Amino acid sequence: MSKWYESDKCRGIIISSRVRLARNLKKYNFHNKLTDDDAQKMINDVKNSILDSRTVFGEQFRYVPVNTLSGNEKFAMVERHVISPELMKSTKPCGVLVKDDESISIMLNEEDHIRIQAISAGDNIDEAFDLADKIDNLIEESVEYAFSEKYGYLTSCPTNVGTGLRASYMMHLPELERTGQIRNVIQTISKFGITVRGIYGEGSDAMGSVYQVSNQVTLGQSEREIIDNLKKVAAIIVQREQELQKRVYEASKEDVEDKLWRSYGLLKHARKMQGKEAMQLISNLMEGESMGAAEMPKCSQSLIQLMINIQPASMQINAGRDMTPDERDKYRAEYIRKMLE
Amino acid sequence: MSKWYESDKCRGIIISSRVRLARNLKKYNFHNKLTDDDAQKMINDVKNSILDSRTVFGEQFRYVPVNTLSGNEKFAMVERHVISPELMKSTKPCGVLVKDDESISIMLNEEDHIRIQAISAGDNIDEAFDLADKIDNLIEESVEYAFSEKYGYLTSCPTNVGTGLRASYMMHLPELERTGQIRNVIQTISKFGITVRGIYGEGSDAMGSVYQVSNQVTLGQSEREIIDNLKKVAAIIVQREQELQKRVYEASKEDVEDKLWRSYGLLKHARKMQGKEAMQLISNLMEGESMGAAEMPKCSQSLIQLMINIQPASMQINAGRDMTPDERDKYRAEYIRKMLE
Repeated sequence: MSKWYESDKCRGIIISSRVRLARNLKKYNFHNKLTDDDAQKMINDVKNSILDSRTVFGEQFRYVPVNTLSGNEKFAMVERHVISPELMKSTKPCGVLVKDDESISIMLNEEDHIRIQAISAGDNIDEAFDLADKIDNLIEESVEYAFSEKYGYLTSCPTNVGTGLRASYMMHLPELERTGQIRNVIQTISKFGITVRGIYGEGSDAMGSVYQVSNQVTLGQSEREIIDNLKKVAAIIVQREQELQKRVYEASKEDVEDKLWRSYGLLKHARKMQGKEAMQLISNLMEGESMGAAEMPKCSQSLIQLMINIQPASMQINAGRDMTPDERDKYRAEYIRKMLE
Repeated sequence: MSKWYESDKCRGIIISSRVRLARNLKKYNFHNKLTDDDAQKMINDVKNSILDSRTVFGEQFRYVPVNTLSGNEKFAMVERHVISPELMKSTKPCGVLVKDDESISIMLNEEDHIRIQAISAGDNIDEAFDLADKIDNLIEESVEYAFSEKYGYLTSCPTNVGTGLRASYMMHLPELERTGQIRNVIQTISKFGITVRGIYGEGSDAMGSVYQVSNQVTLGQSEREIIDNLKKVAAIIVQREQELQKRVYEASKEDVEDKLWRSYGLLKHARKMQGKEAMQLISNLMEGESMGAAEMPKCSQSLIQLMINIQPASMQINAGRDMTPDERDKYRAEYIRKMLE
């Protein structure tokens, strides 16, 4: 089963679209006051609602008991965006139901009992919402959600009360970053309730010029309004980034091609490479792709997949062993060399 | 006829060995007071002494009237070390007799009537001296040199009086340069009458970490003493550079290989490249070669030849047209890409 990040659709400014729904079960205490026993019961309730359902999902999902995994295994799931950094750090009973193509994951006992996440490659937020919505309905067939007629879905953190919805785009914004305009963009869109985070969410850096653009407010708006608002803002960001890329490309195609092929030359021949440099160079290739550079180096993976696969834990899982940072830098360079044809 | 710089012998710290003899004819005024008529006569006298000689040299040399050449043609000869920058700039009748492999050139009406230059690939100063000496004897069979029993050969500039000999090594000294030790070396060896210049002699920069190490004093010492003194000093410089290279290589072979292959990656894939960067990157490959890096990128030219061929005038001669600096940067990148396999 190929993963969402292997799709050709993620070769653009919008790499992927994601919808997350926060839900809690009425019959259990919320996260902070949930006993381990009840946590396990709650997990089983939700697991059963999916795995025992007579839908196609019953066979497409598998359950992973996150708190029993090794550090590398957990971290690698974060790197692939399957679970959140918060779930990785949890010491309580917790887990995740993952769809075979990793497009849907249902985190159990994260900050809320249930976090349904659906990811679609490229500019496809409606599809992501539909997927999350289907899962939401399926679970609700067998459990009762904590819901208030006045506020909507109740959640651990007040910022999620209401729809419990966070919609976000993963975007590649190299020129907004390079020109420093990203700072103005962040300021401006915050007025529309939209926030910008790094590649791995809250508090993470924007490695490889990859950003997550998402709604901040979940209360007082319908799901449709939240998504439409995000779409509008995202369209403006994409347009600005495209304009800047076009300007750079038209000012000097040769400089663009030079930067592209120099990045390829380093990626294809270096013997050691730190993550930050690799992300930057891969980002340069992605930008070449967005700009529509006439001639493109060939890579046997989508570039976002390559970005994921050279993260520390994913490499260690792939190699089947723990590595020192220096060993990782060598492994990373070797891995990239193999992937670039 | 392959050129000296195509030899495998120039793949080391000592790239080449050069001897230059300054001579003047007794019957003509020295350079500053030489009329154009007499200059032409003087040139003919020396030309005939070589081209009409019944030796093998008669067929191996060709005469090039330097002051009638185009700027590019002259400049390219400087880039290949066939003539000096001074001869290139001369507006008086002047020329050069060049041997087919460019290992010997006899400049006519430079600062002195005659400047015999012999270059041998690698560490071969004795061979270079023998060659220059043979030419010196051959010319002397048909002309009378300005010579004083007391001072030796008389020359335009007092610094050349005596033997008229300058012996020099072209050396690749990346680690002495990188560590800044080259400055101490220059200071120290100046006490032994040895001076260090850039790749194109007096006043030129040391591009690509290539230096010329030569004797400063020509008076009061025999040819043998001058050459032996230079040899001793050069051996010490080579030893120091080798020690530094060994230390770097042993400290981290991986870092050395990484630097080597990154340099290759840029040289092999860039679409534009300025001369300075290209020289630096080629110098990195040369250093890998000197260090004996296990695996080496392949180049269809010796690296010193590549350094010569990417100089501005040589490229313009090769391309058959004048180019703007920007066009040259593209041509250079393309040329290098072709040469690296």
